[in-house]
Amino acid sequence: MQTKDFRGEEKIELPRGFRAAGANAGIKGGGKADMALIASDRPATVAGTFTRNRCPAAPVQLCRRHIADHSGRALVVNSGIANAATGADGRADARKMAADTAAELDLSDDEVFVCSTGSIGPRLPMDKIGAGIGKLAAEASASGGNAAARAIMTTDTRPKCWTVKIEIGGKPVTVAGIAKGAGMIEPDMATMLAFITSDAAVAADDLQLLLAGAVDESFNRITVDGDMSTNDSVLLFANGAAGNASLTREADDWSEFARAVVEVCSRLAWMIVADGEGAGKVATITVGGAASAADAERAARSIANSFLVKTAWAGDNPACGRIVDALGYSGAQIDPDAMDIRYGRLAAIRNGQRGGAGEQELREFVSKSEFDISVDLQQGDYSATVYTCNITEEYVRINM
Amino acid sequence: MQTKDFRGEEKIELPRGFRAAGANAGIKGGGKADMALIASDRPATVAGTFTRNRCPAAPVQLCRRHIADHSGRALVVNSGIANAATGADGRADARKMAADTAAELDLSDDEVFVCSTGSIGPRLPMDKIGAGIGKLAAEASASGGNAAARAIMTTDTRPKCWTVKIEIGGKPVTVAGIAKGAGMIEPDMATMLAFITSDAAVAADDLQLLLAGAVDESFNRITVDGDMSTNDSVLLFANGAAGNASLTREADDWSEFARAVVEVCSRLAWMIVADGEGAGKVATITVGGAASAADAERAARSIANSFLVKTAWAGDNPACGRIVDALGYSGAQIDPDAMDIRYGRLAAIRNGQRGGAGEQELREFVSKSEFDISVDLQQGDYSATVYTCNITEEYVRINM
Repeated sequence: MQTKDFRGEEKIELPRGFRAAGANAGIKGGGKADMALIASDRPATVAGTFTRNRCPAAPVQLCRRHIADHSGRALVVNSGIANAATGADGRADARKMAADTAAELDLSDDEVFVCSTGSIGPRLPMDKIGAGIGKLAAEASASGGNAAARAIMTTDTRPKCWTVKIEIGGKPVTVAGIAKGAGMIEPDMATMLAFITSDAAVAADDLQLLLAGAVDESFNRITVDGDMSTNDSVLLFANGAAGNASLTREADDWSEFARAVVEVCSRLAWMIVADGEGAGKVATITVGGAASAADAERAARSIANSFLVKTAWAGDNPACGRIVDALGYSGAQIDPDAMDIRYGRLAAIRNGQRGGAGEQELREFVSKSEFDISVDLQQGDYSATVYTCNITEEYVRINM
Repeated sequence: MQTKDFRGEEKIELPRGFRAAGANAGIKGGGKADMALIASDRPATVAGTFTRNRCPAAPVQLCRRHIADHSGRALVVNSGIANAATGADGRADARKMAADTAAELDLSDDEVFVCSTGSIGPRLPMDKIGAGIGKLAAEASASGGNAAARAIMTTDTRPKCWTVKIEIGGKPVTVAGIAKGAGMIEPDMATMLAFITSDAAVAADDLQLLLAGAVDESFNRITVDGDMSTNDSVLLFANGAAGNASLTREADDWSEFARAVVEVCSRLAWMIVADGEGAGKVATITVGGAASAADAERAARSIANSFLVKTAWAGDNPACGRIVDALGYSGAQIDPDAMDIRYGRLAAIRNGQRGGAGEQELREFVSKSEFDISVDLQQGDYSATVYTCNITEEYVRINM
């Protein structure tokens, strides 16, 4: 993930040929927007990555089928109910969401992708969903991206949007995305969703490879509570309205486009971790000197997922000892007597023992809203970075 | 783990030939007892199991050496400082704790076992430790077990003791243990310690096998926050003062003795999970119908370690959906459409969808201080049980 020092951007500028809308369909109650639509005025190439949870929600199962040919035209989303653990009935509901949207927009069902986020277990109120789809289709416009970004929020405190403008083959191209957060979430709401649009023309296989790599560098590098949701989905639509010659990995402009996609994913991921409810701090954890790439990742994630470490930070406790503990049970190859831990430039642990840093400087360091901790395992040349946040009492209150 | 419905027993009756003491050595401050001694008046057979954390504390490293011959006479413990992440200096401190204790009791150093629990990182105050050892040796008595149980506490709200009396070869035999808790713990205190004594004579190899099995059925079945400490240790001393013929696995009385050891371990483990600070609820999670033993354990632990599930219970939220989610990311083989979840006898999920149980009855079910949740994966014949607790705001406050 390439960016940080960034806490939010409330505007999205949709690429050419896309319309979007957000609407209140009455699923969540309280007059909140709870449905969103993004549609392309022409067939788009579609790439997607989905949760590896073995109990995937009904809409995830549907998206996996619809993405087989990497083409599509629209995306319909609801928040409030996840349509997960709903069996065959839930799958029928997801299909109906796609069919109703297709009917409104005069598309075929398999051109429509469906995402849901919210409580696991309950059925969708299909009458409300149907009416919501009608509203969305009527209201969708080129300026509707911000309304869509608001409608997919669950306990996010702000919408998450990012827009990048580049030039491909002399044509102006836009890559723009919206997202909602994954953790510190209301009861049974634990989903990360991100939707990215571009007016570039891109070869399908290359778009899929690009998105998979970008997600791995961004959304897969953030952790709030270690849980992996039934509904996590990232979709990328590229509709070619910019008029460029279809991009492939071999093209000169490929790296320019790839950088834009990675930037959008990275910005959105950073906003998610910075907006964990109750969380006020984002920590970048880098583990270097690991014996293997897997070890580096294991060790970094062990720290980033330790509730003892993350609750300590909430109280400005640097938790050096708990980091040693987390490294010890991570499964990574370790020599307890040859291991350094730095808080920024402060030597917290040197060769497995307390380093030169004083308790007070370490406390001040973790009292900041963003900080970096790096570990050198002295076992090899592999490294990995993950992004995490603190855990406050608010986390428990929200999740009770 | 065989027992439950049990929340504490504050008395231990030491077996014949053992003395114990607890003392205030000034390590923790506030006038709290922070050192303990248990000593046998004759050589004892010793079995032990230790943390698999790859950054084991200095005293764990020392115990692993001293247990090589499975014989010993004494155990010295301090609370307040873990002597972990202290390198070669810390190892020298642990050796000195053993040597000072051996000198006081006229033993050889390798007859003394050492355990520490508390903050990871700081060095032990060896002057205070030395004075504490003198006090402990002077005060140790046959009735000192309860004082020892208090001295090893960190944030435990009550001491944990259990005594079982049986007969072996016509001789009365006692198996008695003390323990301290593992989770919901003060900054950097994350250790589970248990010390079991018996006056039975037992063959060393069989004692070790018995203890390893008993620990696997008890202490290894409880989870508070999923962290594995640098200092976890369980030690079992059997000194033969009962005068029985040395017990082996082939003996008729073996199963009687084995049951007593398992009972002591199970009772102590149950007390630990019931005494998680801030926790008011103990849940027994049983996963059956798994495709393999590893799958059953994976699935049960995934539920038992999910902070989303455990925080939900604090608010009497049954969290059926979060359990489906935890099963989905556990890695166990699952068919989302063929999976039942019962809360006691209430069908929460049937074939992957909401079962007949009403939200209100499920809420009432998880409002109790002890409850059972069972999962049938319908994939095979394997099952596993783990014990866990709820997570409250108090957990975060304590760990900040």
